[in-house]
Order: sequence, then structure tokens, then C-alpha cells
Amino acid sequence: MKVSADVRVMIERRKKGYTLEAPFYTSEDIHALDLDVIFRKHWIQVAVEPDVPEPGDYVTVEIGNDSVLIVRDDDMQIRAFHNVCRHRGARLCNSEKGSLGNIVCPYHSWTYNLSGDLMFAEHMGDQFDRCKHSLKSVHLENLAGLIFICLADEPPADFGVMRAAMEPYMLPHGLNETKIAASIDIVEEGNWKLTMENNRECYHCVANHPELTVSLYEYGFGYQRTPANEEGMAAFEETVARRTAQWEAMNLPSAEIERLADLVTGFRTQRLPLDRDGESQTLDAKVASKKLLGGFEQADLGGLSFWTQPNSWHHFMSDHIVTFCVIPLSAGRTLVRTKWLVHKDAREGIDYDVNNLTAVWRATNDQDRTLVEYSHRGATSSAYEPGPYSPFTEGLVEKFCEWYIARLADYADAPETKLPVDSEPASHGEKVVSFMR
Amino acid sequence: MKVSADVRVMIERRKKGYTLEAPFYTSEDIHALDLDVIFRKHWIQVAVEPDVPEPGDYVTVEIGNDSVLIVRDDDMQIRAFHNVCRHRGARLCNSEKGSLGNIVCPYHSWTYNLSGDLMFAEHMGDQFDRCKHSLKSVHLENLAGLIFICLADEPPADFGVMRAAMEPYMLPHGLNETKIAASIDIVEEGNWKLTMENNRECYHCVANHPELTVSLYEYGFGYQRTPANEEGMAAFEETVARRTAQWEAMNLPSAEIERLADLVTGFRTQRLPLDRDGESQTLDAKVASKKLLGGFEQADLGGLSFWTQPNSWHHFMSDHIVTFCVIPLSAGRTLVRTKWLVHKDAREGIDYDVNNLTAVWRATNDQDRTLVEYSHRGATSSAYEPGPYSPFTEGLVEKFCEWYIARLADYADAPETKLPVDSEPASHGEKVVSFMR
Amino acid sequence: MKVSADVRVMIERRKKGYTLEAPFYTSEDIHALDLDVIFRKHWIQVAVEPDVPEPGDYVTVEIGNDSVLIVRDDDMQIRAFHNVCRHRGARLCNSEKGSLGNIVCPYHSWTYNLSGDLMFAEHMGDQFDRCKHSLKSVHLENLAGLIFICLADEPPADFGVMRAAMEPYMLPHGLNETKIAASIDIVEEGNWKLTMENNRECYHCVANHPELTVSLYEYGFGYQRTPANEEGMAAFEETVARRTAQWEAMNLPSAEIERLADLVTGFRTQRLPLDRDGESQTLDAKVASKKLLGGFEQADLGGLSFWTQPNSWHHFMSDHIVTFCVIPLSAGRTLVRTKWLVHKDAREGIDYDVNNLTAVWRATNDQDRTLVEYSHRGATSSAYEPGPYSPFTEGLVEKFCEWYIARLADYADAPETKLPVDSEPASHGEKVVSFMR
Repeated sequence: MKVSADVRVMIERRKKGYTLEAPFYTSEDIHALDLDVIFRKHWIQVAVEPDVPEPGDYVTVEIGNDSVLIVRDDDMQIRAFHNVCRHRGARLCNSEKGSLGNIVCPYHSWTYNLSGDLMFAEHMGDQFDRCKHSLKSVHLENLAGLIFICLADEPPADFGVMRAAMEPYMLPHGLNETKIAASIDIVEEGNWKLTMENNRECYHCVANHPELTVSLYEYGFGYQRTPANEEGMAAFEETVARRTAQWEAMNLPSAEIERLADLVTGFRTQRLPLDRDGESQTLDAKVASKKLLGGFEQADLGGLSFWTQPNSWHHFMSDHIVTFCVIPLSAGRTLVRTKWLVHKDAREGIDYDVNNLTAVWRATNDQDRTLVEYSHRGATSSAYEPGPYSPFTEGLVEKFCEWYIARLADYADAPETKLPVDSEPASHGEKVVSFMR
Repeated sequence: MKVSADVRVMIERRKKGYTLEAPFYTSEDIHALDLDVIFRKHWIQVAVEPDVPEPGDYVTVEIGNDSVLIVRDDDMQIRAFHNVCRHRGARLCNSEKGSLGNIVCPYHSWTYNLSGDLMFAEHMGDQFDRCKHSLKSVHLENLAGLIFICLADEPPADFGVMRAAMEPYMLPHGLNETKIAASIDIVEEGNWKLTMENNRECYHCVANHPELTVSLYEYGFGYQRTPANEEGMAAFEETVARRTAQWEAMNLPSAEIERLADLVTGFRTQRLPLDRDGESQTLDAKVASKKLLGGFEQADLGGLSFWTQPNSWHHFMSDHIVTFCVIPLSAGRTLVRTKWLVHKDAREGIDYDVNNLTAVWRATNDQDRTLVEYSHRGATSSAYEPGPYSPFTEGLVEKFCEWYIARLADYADAPETKLPVDSEPASHGEKVVSFMR
Repeated sequence: MKVSADVRVMIERRKKGYTLEAPFYTSEDIHALDLDVIFRKHWIQVAVEPDVPEPGDYVTVEIGNDSVLIVRDDDMQIRAFHNVCRHRGARLCNSEKGSLGNIVCPYHSWTYNLSGDLMFAEHMGDQFDRCKHSLKSVHLENLAGLIFICLADEPPADFGVMRAAMEPYMLPHGLNETKIAASIDIVEEGNWKLTMENNRECYHCVANHPELTVSLYEYGFGYQRTPANEEGMAAFEETVARRTAQWEAMNLPSAEIERLADLVTGFRTQRLPLDRDGESQTLDAKVASKKLLGGFEQADLGGLSFWTQPNSWHHFMSDHIVTFCVIPLSAGRTLVRTKWLVHKDAREGIDYDVNNLTAVWRATNDQDRTLVEYSHRGATSSAYEPGPYSPFTEGLVEKFCEWYIARLADYADAPETKLPVDSEPASHGEKVVSFMR
């Protein structure tokens, strides 16, 4: 896909500290560009290790029109394939999740093993070469139990930077020893970038998130120091310092790492105390699951948060993990998939109650959905123009926009890839996105 | 938006006395042009004064992707603003109507007063200039209680011609002293111009509108004189002459004013007697509300009709007013909003019955919806070609088409407006509508 | 509609023996091209004679945005007209079927006779020429009771080749003496060509069609001879030879005629025995209707199949006929209309049971719908690439693709038709379909 002169102009004139121009939110052509440049060329968080606990377990995930089959093979390795038969192109697995021995196409029974090799195809004659008809694989990385895929031929090379930084923070929480207690998909009638921008600030929390702010310190997300909040902020900083010392003694890293805009595989992490001497993101700030994660013996470990570009965020607590990934469905529709993970030995109804476990983020997601929808409707207006971000509370929103615009700019500047005629049907090839036609 | 050579060709070759070429009805690109040229640059009737009787009362109306907030301020002035926060662009008011003290954005609580001034915005720092972030206002005119808005920077200058002509006709009916007894929205699966064309003739009334033709003289809308109807038309003309004399004595003007095609803000009016010595557009031709409007003491004042280009018509009777406005939703979907107004002191169930009040136009609207849908389906056919209007009964349909084509032609001929980069995102700027690509 | 250079490239590089490139299945632009080149310029099977048994009986069929009225006139001739009034363009008949004396427009009562002549139009004045406002006719052929229409001005000239070949096969089954016992429409969420390709092979039958394969010999549709099936195929061939001799003695032709790719009006036919010494395509392979067709006295006449390009197939048995036609609704949605015909004197509940009559193809259609949908989803993937057809079981799929590509190629190579300005609105005229923009 080519980037037209008009989109280049909008990329170049993007005003720092301001929201994006409207077409970045509303145009279906830019949506197609986002899929191509952002979602097909970057590391996208799409699943967790407990999605596929046993050999043969699979999940399918859809990014744009691509369906990807994520399956654990008989050697316990997690693999990803394009979910497309090499015969007539039928989609192989048509459920969201399941378990299988071999991958058998429902159309004409072409049969692949869990490594993607074509094992059987009837009536194809003697000239037919099975070896040339294996499933097409997709790049996959497993970061401490979070599964990322990349649809590009050559994925961004800096995944290792994120891995090296994050494993010490995440591994103590033992995500690979969890199970999925609940998974909820919601669809927001707004652009995916509005969903992400909303995630990257807590300026809106006070007025909108009564459940979340039970345990969340709003001071932790940038705040203009005023006489009115001087006392609260000082108390917060004292709490952070005291907790940090405790966590360090337990080998639980907590310092902020902020690489949101300077890496292709951008991310940020920080462990913060919870408000009200809280243990977990619940309605009473107590743990939701009695069976703590990763062999922890103490419940008040604060909240470790991990944000990735372009599409995920995750909160790790002592008793459970909440993991969010975002997939654009169209310029104005976005899927937000939330999973709540507890220790794999925790017993539902005994160690945890699903309603209690999910209460805060069910409410918060719903509130955020409404805000994203208000924003999207506003962005469609002819009166919309980029507005100013707060230099205090919206600094990370600005980082998201900077990263996004930089990724588009890099792509627009890259020398054109010549596509071989055979492997790339024309419609998937060149399309100029243009606005000032 | 630029008008392509192909559309110019269709504008130029439009054949007088014939329906428009199919793309004017079916093309989404011409729909976008209609929004831009017709609905964003002309006076559009969207509301009535009784929509916002008290200070702080508001309604929101949507034209294309623009949401406009119409609010009565504390000084009783009715104002219109773009319903878009100047911070992150969220839609401010997300209900169709309501009441408020200040305008508070639901996202981050930016707060505007009823004059649109930004009064409060947290965390924005010392460099931030509140005065540069007022709500964007929209032009508004209140014509004897009918509210028109114009989204253009410079509205058509001839609104005053319509005001001067119409106030003497309308003011006696005291629209500003009415209340909304009923409001019904219907969506027609057809182009808005088919809705308007249907409104501009009564050739179809005999076969389709048994309820409306109880009180409506079909002779009043153009008729080929034939031996068969000679007697009826003569009787009608005698009735008109007699009634006109009575109304003149009461200072109720009734003469036709027809400025449909020679003004940018085109309109037409006429007061006609009702059939069966009728008082009102009801199933029995008697008044629907015992409490007469505007201090009238006599019920049989005929029907004063007022038609405007591009999108409204209104019937004023002694006891109630029915007001219609039309908003395109897409090339093939159109909103028709009907409001029935009675004296503000009329008591529901005592002075009027809502079912009786609305019966004629609920039935008639539904019949017209079906006809518009049949027309739209026909216009999508490859066999469709412009057909001839009756020179007798479809003269005002022709006037509507003439006005419409002239408005497009004027726009196509106008020198291009240069848009400043900052205030106008590219996607709202230039788009060529083309058909012969 | 012009064919862009990019589509020409895809037409030229089409690889024999492989599925089509993805845009042929997924692109809305190629869907528009398919409607224009395939469905508006070829003979399309849309109805059967028993749809309109009596004078004044009509059905309406929709191809793209065109609605066609098929009506039997008072002289028993079946005619086809564009279902569009010549006045304001309203659709005339708004039901799928019915009966009428004259064709009266619901809008302003313009009245046409069953030959399409305008008989009456009020208020049009003395200058109006009724003769210039007849309904526009559509070409129609009735092949032994199967009704084909062609929307082109000049239909393909080779319909007679198909007629001459097919009448001896079809006439003995007396389709014109049948009635419609059941008619079911289903919508498949896939491209119409995937529906047709699925119809042109039985490679998928074993794994997917338990009901159909009761009576259908899979050997009859191409099979790789292997040691494992050697015995079954030899037995099948012996049965074919024996049956053929019997049918010849009865003057029932059975030999394959295969003209799928060498004619513009491509077709194929063959009479094959049914498995299990079967009589009919039912769950027990026995006749579904006791009243045999066409004066037959013997029930085990096998199945005569008739396949046409681009959009139909039909199975004629001794007791009933099943007839299928396919109409594209969009790139990804396809209507499949199935009708079950029995002798017109067969009595429901006595001679036949509708559930039993329709059981096999209701189940089979539903299974095929699922397979088409899997295929379509796969074709949308960026990983899709044309895959190889079996040289044994998918030879007729290849013929379908060859025919389709040849039809597009012929069109792309044809000198451009100049369209007169008056009869052809611009939007129906030139549109370039392009993919490598």
C-alpha cells in the first residue's frame, strides 16, 4: 500500500501535543493503512499461554481479514499459522478455540500436522508435491506467557529489548502457571487509537471510574501540582518510596521503564502501590483470589502495569492478572478483549468468585467504551480540530501519537517493496491512500 | 469538495420538465456533495421554538456527521454550537434533548457556559489560553418560531426576504406560544430529493392518501382542466374567493407567494380553504384541539402552508401546526421528522387527543414513505431514465429540481475556496466527486 | 465499465488448474464487473414456467439493482420487462409474485397492458406521446420450461445451440406440466463463483454430504483410479453401460454433452444412474412423488443433470425436478434459489410429502453454504494464494474458471461501446475497475 501525498502532508504537519487530525480516526482508507503498517508489521499481543495449555489446543485470532491459528504442538511449542488451506483456500479452523490432533480442512480433507506439514491430499495425482503446500507460518514470541505475533515477513528486530527489560518484572507473577478465569470481548464504536489514547491517561478517571479509583492512585499518572493537591501528592510519593524499598527487598522490580516512543516495539512498565493500602484491583481493594500467584506469600504487592505499542496493556497483581488487547475492526469499530487470569490451582467459587474478580474492569471497560464513542462521534464533525493535550496528565497519550505518526512516517519513507507477481495478488499489493483527491 | 467534470455534464444537460438522472438519487458521492453544497451551505429548518422553552433547554440535531447543539441561554436567546469539545473532540451532549446549567464535557469535565465560553479546564498548565477554546458557534435564525441553522461561514444573505414575506402570514398563529404535543421520526429508504419531490405535488394524493384528502382540496395543487372536473374546479375557485375575502377582513394574508426557484433561500406559501367546509387536517376535518392558537376565535381559517428549500414544509391551522423537516442520512436513507404543535395551555386528553391530532399525517407519512421507497428502487435500475413531469400537477416538483440544479451549478462555478491548513483537516477539504472515472 | 490495466494483468496471468486470485472473490469492484460483464450480458436462468402458470401471473427477479418483471400475457406468451415506470421511475410491482390484469404504477396510476404499452396517464397534457413511454422489454428464452433472461441489448447468439442439444434430454420430463411444490432461498456469505465452483465438483461430497451421497455415485464426477477404488469404479461403469442401453431403448438420451468452456452460453448435461438402484434424490433413494412426470411409467430413470454457465444447475428425475439458480448480491453474499417441481396433478400429502421431497437438498444446500463461507473467509486472507485443482475431481471447476476468465477477457478486448448521452446516465456508464491504484 502506498501512502499518498495528502497523508504524507498530514503526517508531516502533525502538531506535537495535540490530538491527531480527524481522518486518522475516521477514514476507512487510513484504517486500511493502519492494518497494513501498524497491525501487519509490528508485534501484536493477541493471546496468553493459558489459552493453549495442552498439546493440540488452539485459538484463532483475527487481525483485519487475516485469521491466525495459534496452536501448541506435541513438543509443547506454541506455533502460529495462517488459518488457510493451501488447496482451495478454505478457512481451516472455524471456532475461536478448540483442540485437535491434526489440522484437517473441512472442505476436501487435506490434512496437516501440528507443525503445518501437509500429510495427506487425495486425488492430486503423481505430479503433486506435498512439500510445497505446507501451512504458512506466522512469527510468534512468548514473553513470560504473553503471546505476540507478527504478520510481517521480517518482524521488528527489537523484541529482545522488551523481553530483556520485562522478564524480571513479569516472571515472578508466574503467568504460565495461571488459567483463564474469565474472558470478555466488547466492541467499541470508535477508532482503535481513541481506545489506546483513552488507556494512556487517567485524567478522565475521577469523573468516570468510581470502581477503578478505589484502588488506583490517580497521582500515579501525571498530575499538575497545585496547592489543593500538594498534601495528597506528597503522601503518595512517600508511599511509593516506602513500598519500593519493600519490593526491592523481595526482588520485585518497580522502577518505571518508559520506551513508548523510542522503540519500534515500544512499551512502558511501572509497579505502583494501590490506594487504601490495597492488594488488588477489586471493589474493596482486597485480593480476589485466595490462591496467590507465583508462590507469593504476601498480598500487598501493588500493581505492576505493562503497556505495549500499539495494542495492549496488562495489570499484574499478587492474586490475578488482567490482560487487554485491542484489535481494530473498522475505522469506527474496535474490539477490546479482556482476560482475567488466576492461579491454575485456584478453585472457582472457593478461592475466587468470578463476578468479584471481574467487577472493576467490567465497569471500567464499559465506561471507557462510552468515552471512546463520544470521542469518535466528535471526530467525525466538520468542526473537529486537533485539541491540546495536558502537559501533565496526557503526556503518555502524546507518546502514543508520536509513536504512531513515526511508524507511518518510517513506512512512507521506506523504499517501495517490489512484490513478486505470483505470491502477491494485486489487490493485496498497491493501493494509494489519498484524501485530497 | 470539487465537482468533477462528469457531474458538471449532468448538471448542464439536465432536461427541464424531467426527473433527475439516476446518480442524483443513488450515488453516495452525490450524497456527499448534497451534504456539502446543500445542507452545509443553506438555511436548514431543524427545530421549533417550543423545543427549548426554558433557559438551559437544549436539543441536538445531526446533519451529516455534524452534531449541532441548540440551546436557550439565560437571557432567553436561542443559540447554536457545534457539539464538540475543544479538548479531545468528544461529543458534549449525547442525548436528543435535555436541560443543563453549564455545558460540561463528559470526558475530562471541560466546562463551557451557555454562551459557549470555556470556563474551566483542569491540568492545562499556565500557557493555556481558555479564550481560544470556546465552542464554535453556528448561525441561527428564528422565523416566527421556526428555527433555521446554517453551517456555512457566510450564510445566504436572503433570509430576510423570506422573513419579511412570511412573518405576516405566520405570526397570527402564535407558534412561540405552542408546545410540542407529539414528535415522530420516520426513516425512508430513499433519497431525500425523492422525499421532497413527493412533497411538492398532490398528483399522487387521490390514489394514495384517503385520510389527507378528507380535508385537502386536490385542486389546490395544479390540475389539468377537463370537462369531467370543470364543475369541481369552478366550485373550488368560488370557495377560495369567498374565503379569501373573509380572511382579509381578519388580517390573515392568504395570497400565494412563490419564490421556490428564484431565491437561494427559496420558499412558497399559500393559505387555502379546507374541503368539506373543514377546520383542520383531521379525519373529520374538525379542529383537533379545542384551545385555538394565537387568540383565534374562529376555527375555519383554512390551512396556511409554508414550503422551504431544501428541506421543510409546515401546515398552520387555527388549532394546531404540523411541521416537517427532512435530513438525508445516506444516498438511500432519509429522516423525516414531524412535530405537532398545539397551544401551550391546551390540556392533553381534555382539549386534544394525541391519536386524533396525529392520525392524518401518521397515515400520510407512511404512505409517502412507501412511494419514496418505490421511486428509489426504480432509480437504481439500469433501465431508469428521466421521465416527464406533468405540466399541470408537477410544476412545483420541477421548481424543486430547478432550484437544486441551480445550487449545484452555482457551487461548481464558484472560484475555489483556499482552506487554511490548520483549521481544516484535509479529509474535510477537497474531494472530487466523479462518475465517469 | 472499463476494465483497468490491473484487472487485465490478473486476467492474463491466470494460472490454469489453479483457483482464481483473491480479488476475483473478494473485491466489490470485480463484483460490479461480474454484474456488468457476466450477469447483464449473458443468458441467466431465473425462473421456471410453473412460476407463471396463468395469464397475468408474474414474478419479479432482481439481478444487481435491476428488477425484472416476468409475466404471462393473455396470449399465454411469457414476457419480461424492466420493472420501472416510465414516469417518475417507481418500481411497478413490489412483490415477489402475484397476478394482475394491467400493470398499474402505485405512484400516479400510469397504466400499462401486459404487452408493456402505456394505456393511460392522467394530467400529461396534449403534447404527451404515450407510445414513447412503453415499458422497456428484456430478452427472454423458454427452454423446455426453464426461463432464461438476458439484460443485454444483443444477447449471445448461441442460445440455440443449447436449445437444440438440450430439448431431447429435457422434454420427456414435462417441466411445463409441473407445479412448484417448494421454493427456498438461502443466502451464502461468499462470492457467487465459490458457490458455482462448489457445485462443479463432488470431491467434497464424501466428507460433507451424507444425505446426497445416498443416491449420488461419487464416481460420476471424476475420480483418480487407485487400487483401492478399482473394484467400485468398474462396477459403476458396468451399471452406467447397462442403464444407458435401457434408456436408449426408451428414447431417453443420456450421453454427456460438455460445452462448458467453448460456448458463450456454456452448458453440460449427462444422465447417470443413481446409487443403490435408486429412483430419485431422496433419503431412501425412492421416488418422492407417486405421480411420475411426463407420462413416465418407470421410476428408475436415473438423474438427468443440466449445468449452465454462469448460474444454474438442475436435476431431472422420474418423479420430480430440482432446479437451482444463483444470483450474486455483493462480492461476499450470494442468493441460491432452489425449487422442487412435481407433476401438476400430484397432491400434497397424498402423492408427495414436502419434507421428504426437499430433505436431501435442504441438507446439502446448508452444507454447501458452510463450505462456501469457509472458502470466502479464506480468500480474504493476505496468506491466500491460488491453489491447485485436482486433475481428476476438479476438472469441471477448472472449466468454470476458464469460461469466466475468457468472458472477462473477451469483454476487456472488445472495442468500447459509445453510449448515447440520453439513454444512459453517466453513473451507469464508464467506471474503471482498478486494483493497483
